[in-house]
Amino acid sequence: MNQKTDFLQNGESGTKRILITAGGTSEIIDSVRSITNHSTGRLGKQIAEVFLLKPEFEIDYVTTHQAVLPDEQDRLHLHYIQTTMDLKETLEYLLEKTTYHAVIHSMAVSDFTPESSLPQEPFLQTLYQHLKTDSEVLSSFSNFENLFHQLSVPQTSEKKISSNTDHLLMVLKQNPKIIQRIKQMQPTTLLVGFKLLVGVKKEELLAVATESLKKNSADFVLANDLESITQSQHIGYLVSNTGVIAQGSTKLEIASMIVEAVSKGEG
Amino acid sequence: MNQKTDFLQNGESGTKRILITAGGTSEIIDSVRSITNHSTGRLGKQIAEVFLLKPEFEIDYVTTHQAVLPDEQDRLHLHYIQTTMDLKETLEYLLEKTTYHAVIHSMAVSDFTPESSLPQEPFLQTLYQHLKTDSEVLSSFSNFENLFHQLSVPQTSEKKISSNTDHLLMVLKQNPKIIQRIKQMQPTTLLVGFKLLVGVKKEELLAVATESLKKNSADFVLANDLESITQSQHIGYLVSNTGVIAQGSTKLEIASMIVEAVSKGEG
Repeated sequence: MNQKTDFLQNGESGTKRILITAGGTSEIIDSVRSITNHSTGRLGKQIAEVFLLKPEFEIDYVTTHQAVLPDEQDRLHLHYIQTTMDLKETLEYLLEKTTYHAVIHSMAVSDFTPESSLPQEPFLQTLYQHLKTDSEVLSSFSNFENLFHQLSVPQTSEKKISSNTDHLLMVLKQNPKIIQRIKQMQPTTLLVGFKLLVGVKKEELLAVATESLKKNSADFVLANDLESITQSQHIGYLVSNTGVIAQGSTKLEIASMIVEAVSKGEG
Repeated sequence: MNQKTDFLQNGESGTKRILITAGGTSEIIDSVRSITNHSTGRLGKQIAEVFLLKPEFEIDYVTTHQAVLPDEQDRLHLHYIQTTMDLKETLEYLLEKTTYHAVIHSMAVSDFTPESSLPQEPFLQTLYQHLKTDSEVLSSFSNFENLFHQLSVPQTSEKKISSNTDHLLMVLKQNPKIIQRIKQMQPTTLLVGFKLLVGVKKEELLAVATESLKKNSADFVLANDLESITQSQHIGYLVSNTGVIAQGSTKLEIASMIVEAVSKGEG
């Protein structure tokens, strides 16, 4: 089923192209360490499998080497990424090339990526010296880069960070909000976002999901809480701008809800 | 082969008990993120498999759920850990209970673990305020904990760190040096340590490995450089207090070197 379908989209033929992201990004600290967002990719896998029960769907599946893959791989095109910047490039490439019926962005994306790190001692020593002698030099800092520059604190850029310090200071900078690129590039696609919180009340979860829906111009957001996810249970609420339109308590129920909403969504 | 052998050690019978650690620890940042030390566990797997070719060896194998496992699992007892503190507890428990002929500590252990994190803005604002008004309050800090306390900077202790800040400051503290506990608890065991550097000259690699040998009272250190490890190649030097006693260029050669050194080591 690898026929050329790039020109057959959104109902021009029977084939509908879907983009699914699944798994978790990881950000490189140095050549042996990284910051990993835990996500098994199991929910994305389940969503892909339910889409593939319907012969009209064909899927671009963006994932990581750590995540589980859908069992059904016919009509599934795999694209592997590791970092958030990889993800950005891959999504921009795919969204440029293909018009998608829907984008299901279930990947857990790192909010931050390591920018610099340094041992505690040089930072505090230099800070203290400047405090005693020339505190005015500090008056212009507005961010860490600026502060480090003002203090002339040497930033570590070793291939492998040395362990000869009691404490290490790591400065992380915010990653671009990948999800916002999706509707910017394809205003007509149906966008399903995901909001995972940890240990909050249902009202707060739904409020944050609704906020996320608006901020990212998403059509649907699947709201879920890590503390109500177990091996056999996965509580999720599908939120649209009319409120909660469906809820499920297993990955299969959530996947079915999303596939139904996306199928109807074409109207 | 699960007969009770705890009382039959170091040549009292034919059975020799070996402790192998393999894989990489990961340190928890919050409920969805962690800092991971990359290690597939492939070298530890290979070492275990070569030991198990000899019927006299029985192995306690400490590893992670992410690492690959030895193919041969008869006479292999698995113990899973995630963080460096888990590893410390498990090793102390095992070293208390059993006398080992040798300990092969190939696990990649995180040097640092997250201690606190906070957005850039409150840190810099508070710092700047104090600089202008009361710089003497800062004169007593000697570490970040102290500095934060002096500045009364609110430290984040959320279940999931919020992304509403350009930069995030993460303070990491040094983990205990697990390897040093091994000879403290069992001075007579043969200890094989590992030193992985990245992109250094051979002389530097061997010098650092020799330093590590002395500092940790190891009998052997396997010195290797990430940049000379590929899918099919793994350059390693086995260092003892007499210098480089063997070298290999595949995981199997390295495993054989170590098994031979440990077998001879009993004298």
